[in-house]
Amino acid sequence: MSKPLLAALRSEKPTRTPLWLMRQAGRYLPEYRELRAKAGGFLDLCYNPAYAAEITLQPLRRFDLDAAILFSDILVIPKALGQDLRFETGEGPALPPIRDLAGLEKLDQSRFLESLSPIFETVRRVKTDLPPQATLIGFAGAPWTVACYMVEGGGSKEFAHVKSWAFRDPDSFQVLIDLLVEKTIIYLSAQCDAGAEAVQLFDSWASALPPAEFNRWVIQPTAKIVKALREKHPHIPFIGFPRGAGFGFERYVRETGVNGVGIDQNVPADWARDHLQPLTTVQGNLDPILLLTGGNRMEEEANRLLETLSPGRFIFNLGHGVLQQTPPDHVARLVDLVHGKNG
Amino acid sequence: MSKPLLAALRSEKPTRTPLWLMRQAGRYLPEYRELRAKAGGFLDLCYNPAYAAEITLQPLRRFDLDAAILFSDILVIPKALGQDLRFETGEGPALPPIRDLAGLEKLDQSRFLESLSPIFETVRRVKTDLPPQATLIGFAGAPWTVACYMVEGGGSKEFAHVKSWAFRDPDSFQVLIDLLVEKTIIYLSAQCDAGAEAVQLFDSWASALPPAEFNRWVIQPTAKIVKALREKHPHIPFIGFPRGAGFGFERYVRETGVNGVGIDQNVPADWARDHLQPLTTVQGNLDPILLLTGGNRMEEEANRLLETLSPGRFIFNLGHGVLQQTPPDHVARLVDLVHGKNG
Repeated sequence: MSKPLLAALRSEKPTRTPLWLMRQAGRYLPEYRELRAKAGGFLDLCYNPAYAAEITLQPLRRFDLDAAILFSDILVIPKALGQDLRFETGEGPALPPIRDLAGLEKLDQSRFLESLSPIFETVRRVKTDLPPQATLIGFAGAPWTVACYMVEGGGSKEFAHVKSWAFRDPDSFQVLIDLLVEKTIIYLSAQCDAGAEAVQLFDSWASALPPAEFNRWVIQPTAKIVKALREKHPHIPFIGFPRGAGFGFERYVRETGVNGVGIDQNVPADWARDHLQPLTTVQGNLDPILLLTGGNRMEEEANRLLETLSPGRFIFNLGHGVLQQTPPDHVARLVDLVHGKNG
Repeated sequence: MSKPLLAALRSEKPTRTPLWLMRQAGRYLPEYRELRAKAGGFLDLCYNPAYAAEITLQPLRRFDLDAAILFSDILVIPKALGQDLRFETGEGPALPPIRDLAGLEKLDQSRFLESLSPIFETVRRVKTDLPPQATLIGFAGAPWTVACYMVEGGGSKEFAHVKSWAFRDPDSFQVLIDLLVEKTIIYLSAQCDAGAEAVQLFDSWASALPPAEFNRWVIQPTAKIVKALREKHPHIPFIGFPRGAGFGFERYVRETGVNGVGIDQNVPADWARDHLQPLTTVQGNLDPILLLTGGNRMEEEANRLLETLSPGRFIFNLGHGVLQQTPPDHVARLVDLVHGKNG
């Protein structure tokens, strides 16, 4: 009998509706905050396999979840490519921006796998201690989203630099994307070798692109990664999460060949049922603010999601990550509700 | 013969494809920066009719545009309701947040119209100097978006406070929304009395709400405003702009009764042609980054938009506001292209 999450992704009938939550390990848990206070900065946690494995498993000690997702960050790839990366408290990530190929060529990529090796060790450690029902999910940032951070030098509202580069000189921007495709394949493949049982590709800024560019910089790179990973690891299911893709979700699913698609909370569940579930497993999409709020409205919406989507291929999740101020009790209630109704 | 923009909104055949740009008056224009340096802060400009009228007209002196849009800010309504409002340089707006009805009741609303009177004077002045082809558009922020700022106390990524209030206690949140509906009707109506020939309602954060809440906090308040304004000013066309509404655009158009709908750059033009143009006039949606970038890619996309949408009811615009770093030459080129092709 497959684990519930793997069954859902393989279009088998799972023993219960599988459930996990994006950012389920993190700042809303007191045991995380305690560990972080000891360890130093966020990156010190990511690159320390003992800490990162412990944090990955913390939510599974509290809640009956169907997946553990590697505690790490999508920006470990730029760092492994030689781009300096810092997290200032409350400020988000900061990198010296790369605005053209000359900037890209200056990076020292020679320590790529060495830089990522603590992460593979984390995967191995988590795998050893994983509860039997839980699937270990590895992940990476998608090339477009990682490129956004590399070019902007951090988060952005407008994505003016990266979009300008992509619009003005797509051929040279393609070089950056191709590099990220190649390295993401290597990175995800090594996570699978270390014990990841499924992978998710986070394209958090997919919404920043109009349709033609969405195709070139989101769909096509993802399709290449899915194909290459499937050749190396045919049994590892692949979840894509092009957050905010809106009208682009259907084409994304058709043309990338993902086994599952994460949908954000802006996608109506009945639309996902009618247009995406016939093609793939749907994962989502309770609004994280509802989890923060809790109470009747959360339960009402969770039940509505289950009614609409759990008759088909479905993994219960949020539409985006757990928010820092979320009371852990609300998570416990949600897990009970999802499993009680379907377990 | 109607002015081109009014003709498009009245489903008459315009003499040319009407064109204006959101945030067409502003920081990308050197003459704006010069005037601002003299005047002081951003709000000093908004509340000074001589300055605000001059700024409103600046882009029409440079470019052959089909509309002037009142230079103002959506947050003049909270300010008129007695909530303190500041703009710190580079920081965006800051207001002392209102998190419940007790906070709302503390506001001194007694100077509402008095506070807004300089804005009506601006409308009158602009109307006097308006080029003959141009339509004067008044505007307001939509209740949901204005409530976001009032409750969060400024901009936000997650909208945790305002959404929590709306999810947890919709009946009390309705009081805030109803107040904003009532005041927005008064405000827009006074703009029409002063000379506005069309109005636009900006719902910049419409994308923050899942479908049930989108209906209650975006569609229903907008429908009430459209209805009330149409009773008072039956000849003034109404444009709604629920930015990022995605799957919600069609329902928004059907249920609000707007004469035109602004679409952001994430909406595929062919989808808008097939699903929205049969119902209303479509306004949009070139990516502002393409205007910043200029060159072939901008022209290619502008031509594609014209081919797809200008056979139907259409107003050429951006999908969001002009970005500060945009070269004015790119705007000139775009105006030539849109009017050259169709003028």
